[in-house]
Order: sequence, then structure tokens, then C-alpha cells
Amino acid sequence: MAKEQAVVLEQLDRSALRGDRPEKAQAALEQVPRLEEDLIQLEAALVRATEDAEETLQAAARHLVSAGGKRIRPMVTLLACGACAGDPKSAIPYAVAAELTHSATLLHDDVIDDGPMRRGQPASRVLWGNAVSVLSGDWLLTRALEIVAAAPARSAALPSLLSTMRRLVEGEVLQLSLRGRFEASEQDYFDVVKGKTASLFGWSAAAGAWAAGSRGEVPEALVVFGEGIGTAFQLVDDALDYDADEQKLGKRLGIDLLEGKATLPLIRACEADATLAPRLLRLIAGDGAIDELVSDVLAAVKRTGAVEEARASAREHTAAAMAALERVPDGVHRRAMAEAARQLTERAF
Amino acid sequence: MAKEQAVVLEQLDRSALRGDRPEKAQAALEQVPRLEEDLIQLEAALVRATEDAEETLQAAARHLVSAGGKRIRPMVTLLACGACAGDPKSAIPYAVAAELTHSATLLHDDVIDDGPMRRGQPASRVLWGNAVSVLSGDWLLTRALEIVAAAPARSAALPSLLSTMRRLVEGEVLQLSLRGRFEASEQDYFDVVKGKTASLFGWSAAAGAWAAGSRGEVPEALVVFGEGIGTAFQLVDDALDYDADEQKLGKRLGIDLLEGKATLPLIRACEADATLAPRLLRLIAGDGAIDELVSDVLAAVKRTGAVEEARASAREHTAAAMAALERVPDGVHRRAMAEAARQLTERAF
Repeated sequence: MAKEQAVVLEQLDRSALRGDRPEKAQAALEQVPRLEEDLIQLEAALVRATEDAEETLQAAARHLVSAGGKRIRPMVTLLACGACAGDPKSAIPYAVAAELTHSATLLHDDVIDDGPMRRGQPASRVLWGNAVSVLSGDWLLTRALEIVAAAPARSAALPSLLSTMRRLVEGEVLQLSLRGRFEASEQDYFDVVKGKTASLFGWSAAAGAWAAGSRGEVPEALVVFGEGIGTAFQLVDDALDYDADEQKLGKRLGIDLLEGKATLPLIRACEADATLAPRLLRLIAGDGAIDELVSDVLAAVKRTGAVEEARASAREHTAAAMAALERVPDGVHRRAMAEAARQLTERAF
Repeated sequence: MAKEQAVVLEQLDRSALRGDRPEKAQAALEQVPRLEEDLIQLEAALVRATEDAEETLQAAARHLVSAGGKRIRPMVTLLACGACAGDPKSAIPYAVAAELTHSATLLHDDVIDDGPMRRGQPASRVLWGNAVSVLSGDWLLTRALEIVAAAPARSAALPSLLSTMRRLVEGEVLQLSLRGRFEASEQDYFDVVKGKTASLFGWSAAAGAWAAGSRGEVPEALVVFGEGIGTAFQLVDDALDYDADEQKLGKRLGIDLLEGKATLPLIRACEADATLAPRLLRLIAGDGAIDELVSDVLAAVKRTGAVEEARASAREHTAAAMAALERVPDGVHRRAMAEAARQLTERAF
């Protein structure tokens, strides 16, 4: 084991692996034999995956891949593999690829989103950040694919990961083209979510089944399950941007609004309250005190009930995911997936 | 055939396909049966490869992939396939992947390089450009891989394209880390070139052989050939930045200098003329009239003979490429590759 890897594993407090999880999900996860050991193996594999990268790349990649992330996608991969009676160790390459792909999209998102949001910062820092973000993202994408290309179930997983990556990009592009267009349709919104979030959740779930040697109906059901919880996850994320405890959330509310993102709460609120559109135009034009305009819009959106509607939509997508899960063999793994999905939907931060 | 594709093919003046080539190379290429038809097929396949992309992506991708590019990499793929007695049509997917990969790196380079060079432009345009450049580059990379993953010789070509993409990124990262460090070593310079340029030339050549069903020594020799001419190509490019007819080159001289790129002419010149380093420091610091400082440094570099040394190094790498080509079956295809390689090395723009 490389020295650096040993250090990371030493620092990794085992109890921290379950730190953030709500009680019920935690109880279900504890029923899964050897899950904690598998998660530690996953952390070690994540460290190994980037250890031959050049220093700067490694720093940027590690920053995101570092221990302590939520690891939702790789956890789904490991549980899906167990549900299909596979050895979760065989799913670790796919779990790693899922997390690296997710990190790569975050790095590229940084370049895409940061422009208007970081105007106050020195240009050189933003530019240096852009170059390293683009290249580290590229590096992680190719590394994720290399790992899958070298794994045993590659014939199912590799073409599928490629089309997933394309869908991720297409979701981002659609989101970009809708920026500032608050009259976007719900269909547009769900197309963005399916691409940028649901697709990788779907792949992560199916990859666990492929790793277990499962083909046909079960991995297909897991794609539906993964895409369902991915969609629900994004809906909750978008609702939280309008209505959350800022301290628990760890970031300010209204960020989507400032980035001109037409998420479901805003789309629904604009339908319900005709006075919102002109206020949004003032916000985009920077016509007035931004902080006041943002609180004003946040309050107006909440008054329409649109945030609760987004949460209700999340519950519907979770229910569809649960229905798909019925086609996956029952057992501790499936129950853990179901409980974790429920908790992801009900989370308050 | 899609309407847009038909339009592109109509616009494509067949004679333009050979417009820029020096006479000798053109004569050798004309000995290759059906090459012109294969190149037209290639153009059509390039159009098809992006026709299902979202509008903005397509525009950005087409801008680079549009008819009229030099098509050096895909041409090498087609000729290598012919040399191995394959039907060049079977090499078209690989030729397309090579060109899309090249275009993707140009799109990402744009984000990496454009910072300091485009300061005078409105920030919003630069930022919008960044987002679209990152996403179109990502899209083209995944599309290139999807095309190879769906092609018959994928088992050899796909893992190799993945590691090529990683090497491209690693070359760019190394170049970035050396920016402004004019005391870089020649080894550093060649490591950058091997990664960012030679690797894809090597893959492009070998992919032609793989498409023809060739395995073992011949594709290995073609990797060496491709990497050799790729290195020579980059050396000539870097020499031309110091000494070319600006009008024929189609861009200003000294761009590498302004971007802080320590290419071989500059590294050699700094070794030969100790007064250069302080002038470069003034240039980086923007201390003085930039245009005058640039002409001063360009003239000083030329006086040391470093530009001719870079051209001599290009000739050495071409010679090594030619030696490798001896292991490839002789015939019109191999002779066309040899002649094209020679002309790439001797080009004056």
C-alpha cells in the first residue's frame, strides 16, 4: 500500500463513515454484512485511483474525492451488487468510476457556473482555477473509463458509462441554454435533471448488478430505481435552495436564483404568481439591492407553495423508484437501498 | 442523408481537399487509389458524428470539425489502414474519433489558454465561451469514444484511445505547470510534446492498422511512426512561432512567448544567450512596451540559431519515424505516408 494511502486510511475515522445518516437509514445499513469494511475498501480504491496523477491534478481531484463525501452513488453500486448476490468487492471498480465521474462533473461545473458568481475575485485566480478544473475533470473522466475498461463486466458497463457521460453533458448544456429563462417548461426542467443527475444514479445502480454477473430485467429495474432516486435527490436539492436551514445546509439560500437556474420551485411559483416575473427581471438586470430582491423572491416563491410541490414531486419519483426495486431480489441489501432512498427524499439539508 | 449533411457535402469543393498540400506530397497522395473518395466519406462521417448534438454544442463542434481542416490525423489513419491491406472504409470510425479527439482538445485548450490572451474582450463573452467550450469538448470526447466502442476493432483501439486521452491531458498539465518557467529542461519540453501531440498521432496511425485487422509488430511500428511525426510536427509548429511569414502562417509570431510557453527554440536560446532571461522576466512582468519586447526577444532567439536547431530536431524525429515505417508493408500507402511526413517537417507555415 502506498504511503499516502496508508495516511488517508489512518485519518479515516470509521464512525465518520456513518456520521451524517439519519437513524432509520443507518439501522437498515447496519443490517448489511461487512458494509463498513467495503466502504473502507472503497475509500482506499479512490485514493489509489488518483495516486499516479501529476501533483496539481491530484490536489484538485483529491479535494473533491477526499474522504468524507456523501458517497451516495458508489454506495448504491455496492448495495445493488449485494442485492444481486455478488461479492461487493467486485463492484468496487464501478463504485470508484461512479464517484470519479461525479467529481469530474463538479470540476467542470465549476468552470461553467463560476463566471458571473465570482466577479469580485482576482481574475488570475479564477483563470488558474479554470485551467486546472478543466484538466482535472478530463483526467478523472478518462481514469473512470479506464477503470471500467479494465474490469470484468466491461462489455455491459463501458458503453453504458460512455452514453451516461454524454447525457451528463447534454443535461448541462440544456441547463446552460435555459439560464435566465424563467419561463422554461417543467419538461425542460425534467430533461435537465434526467441528464445531469438521474443518468449517473441509474448507471451506478445497474453497474452493481453487472458486477454481480446479473443481466436483463434486474439491471434494467436498477436503472429505473437509480434514475428515480436521482431525480428525487435533485428535486429535494432544488427545493432546499429555497427553503432550508442555511447553517445545516452549509451554504446560502437562493444560489440557483442568482445563477438564473429555472428549477421546479421557481417554474411552479411563476405559474402561480404573475408578479414574480417582473421581479426576476429586475434581479437579473441587477436593478436594486440584490440581497433584498433575493429575500423578496424567496419569500414569494415559498408563499405560492411551490417548494412543497417540488418536495411532493420528489416523493412521487421515489415511489416510482421503489416500485422498480420490487423487481430486484429481496434481502438486507434491497431494504437498505429502499430506506436510504426514503431518507434522501425526506432530508432537510 | 440528413439535409444539413447534404449541404456540407455540396459546399465541399473537392479540389479544396488538396489545396494546401505541397506538390511532392500531393503527387504521392494521388498514387493512392480512391483516396479522394475516402476523404469525402470522412467529411460526411464527421458531419454525421455531431448531427444529433444540441444546437450550441453542434455549432461549437462544427466550427472546429468543419470542412477545410488539415485532417492530418485521420489521413494517417486511412493511409495506415490501406498500407495494412485493409479497406479504408473500415478505418473511417477511427479516423473520425481521431479528429473529434483533436477538436475536443482544442476546445479545452481554449479555456486553458485564453485567460491572459483575451483580456481586452468583454468578460461575458469569454465566460460564455468557457462554458460552451468545456461542454462541447466533453461531448466530443465521449462521442469519439462511443464511435470507437461501437467499431469492430474496439478491443485494441478503445483502451488505447483512453490512455491516449489521459496522456493528452497529462501533457497539457505539464505544460501548464511549466508556464513562465523559461529555465525548463529539454526533457520537460519533450514530455509535454509526447503527451499533448505525439500520443494522438501515434494512436491515429496504429488505429488504421487495427481497423485492417493487423496486430503485433506493424501497429507497434505505426505507433512509433505516428509519435515521431507528431513530435516533428510540434517542433516545426514551435519553430514557426519564432520564424515564419506571418501572412502565410495566418497568425502573429511570438504567441507562445506571450503565453509563457517554454518551447525548444526558447529553451535553447536561453542556454546560448544569458542576456535573454532578464528580458523574458521584463516581458512576463509587462515592464515596458510589450510589442517592442516581443520583437526584441524574437530577434535575439533567431540570432542564437535556436530556431534552426528546433527544425533540425524535427528532422531527426522524422528520420526516426521513417525508420519505423520500414516495418510497415511497402506500397503506395506507405510512400504517401513517408512523403506527407517529410513535407510536414519542411513546411514553412
